[in-house]
Amino acid sequence: MKLTPEQLEAFDREGYLFLPNVFSSEEIGLLRDEARAIYATDREEVWRKSSGVARTAFAAHTYNEAFRRLGAHPRLVEPVTQLLDGPVYMHQFKINAKAAFDGEVWQWHQDFGTWHRDDEMPEPRAMNIALFLDEVTSVNGPLMFIPRSHKEGTQAAGHDLETTSYPLWTLDRATVTRLAEEGGIVAPTGPAGSILLFHSNLVHASPSNISPWDRTIVYLSLCHVDNHIRKFTRKDWIAHRDFTPIQPLPDDCLSELASKHAAE
Amino acid sequence: MKLTPEQLEAFDREGYLFLPNVFSSEEIGLLRDEARAIYATDREEVWRKSSGVARTAFAAHTYNEAFRRLGAHPRLVEPVTQLLDGPVYMHQFKINAKAAFDGEVWQWHQDFGTWHRDDEMPEPRAMNIALFLDEVTSVNGPLMFIPRSHKEGTQAAGHDLETTSYPLWTLDRATVTRLAEEGGIVAPTGPAGSILLFHSNLVHASPSNISPWDRTIVYLSLCHVDNHIRKFTRKDWIAHRDFTPIQPLPDDCLSELASKHAAE
Repeated sequence: MKLTPEQLEAFDREGYLFLPNVFSSEEIGLLRDEARAIYATDREEVWRKSSGVARTAFAAHTYNEAFRRLGAHPRLVEPVTQLLDGPVYMHQFKINAKAAFDGEVWQWHQDFGTWHRDDEMPEPRAMNIALFLDEVTSVNGPLMFIPRSHKEGTQAAGHDLETTSYPLWTLDRATVTRLAEEGGIVAPTGPAGSILLFHSNLVHASPSNISPWDRTIVYLSLCHVDNHIRKFTRKDWIAHRDFTPIQPLPDDCLSELASKHAAE
Repeated sequence: MKLTPEQLEAFDREGYLFLPNVFSSEEIGLLRDEARAIYATDREEVWRKSSGVARTAFAAHTYNEAFRRLGAHPRLVEPVTQLLDGPVYMHQFKINAKAAFDGEVWQWHQDFGTWHRDDEMPEPRAMNIALFLDEVTSVNGPLMFIPRSHKEGTQAAGHDLETTSYPLWTLDRATVTRLAEEGGIVAPTGPAGSILLFHSNLVHASPSNISPWDRTIVYLSLCHVDNHIRKFTRKDWIAHRDFTPIQPLPDDCLSELASKHAAE
């Protein structure tokens, strides 16, 4: 899967790219079942709200076969390799459940701000590629992007340890207001199986989910191998230490596993 | 301003009606200035979040000339008189500021549920008509409706005194889920000056506003005069006791005041 020159140009200009229906309903069905099973387990990599509802499962590619395959899936790894111009390793792997009724806000931030400050990642030669496991609509807490905000580099930020369950370096209101007046705000929506690629300096947030529908998204944070982190203070299942280049698996790696499960 | 047979039919079927651009930018500019002035005053009718940010100003039609005129504006009073089939009085009048960054959730509820339980309003012969003072978009906390949910009458509800600053009778999750599976969820958006009419049994909610843009909406809750409330326990500036039929003012009542202000 190669991005076209038009797609590369749009990514460079806007800071993100939305591609609907990249994974089949069979592939998504498998991943959704496995995510549910992971959320039901009691392990330190699964973070919960005080209510007990799962919020984020980290590093599932290290302990679950379906997500191991997803972490090396060519439809995710190849476009990012192309955009970052070289081999990539997995810096972070998250399954974020913005649960029906309960899903919480993520405040305005840049991912590279956190990776640089907390992990000493040298440059923004890393990025997210997100896969929708549920349909994302305007009412179930879609990601919100400020287009073109990645062009202004890494903004000053404050370490927010209170308003979200996950420590984030968040931007101040004056900065968000200024950037949004310039670039607007978009909230890409689409069916399960769609993917979103976004620059590590793109300013983004997501609102609460008060709808009765879950909104689960898997995030692969991929980093150029030369740009690996230098500081190892966060848990190694949050900021990984394995800088080996990812070798993409065959395109049918997930559908093959789904067929196996169906046959069992 | 008369609703057409098609509009009456759509309201009956879906439970709401959205009419874009009913008020001019001159009229809206006046109301927005006056709302800002009201929020800046220290009076008991203006409710605030713990941060001090204004959330709701009640009963502004009783102490502000622009909102007094809005409360008798023919573009609001006449369509509701038509839908409720008779003269109406003002049961409640609110300017709800879902402030940029700070705007809070309103949980799923039916307005008639609160009016009936708290104020002993006999029947759902009352409804809201809402006027957007700011543009409402998918990212600044739009109202969310479950279409056709008004057809199932008043649902059981629990009195929520905790999750919002304002006591509300809210629906349980199983009920919201069932109704949304049947009717879906819509979030009407449009420019400042648009109006939304909705049935007092229509199930609705609104999410937080994490965008840098305010989202202020004025709500007139109008009730058929025969259907006035019987219990007077809430403050009289929350649930009014004046059941006099509203006499609509001329159509230019607001633009005339705006011109006067501009000339000063």
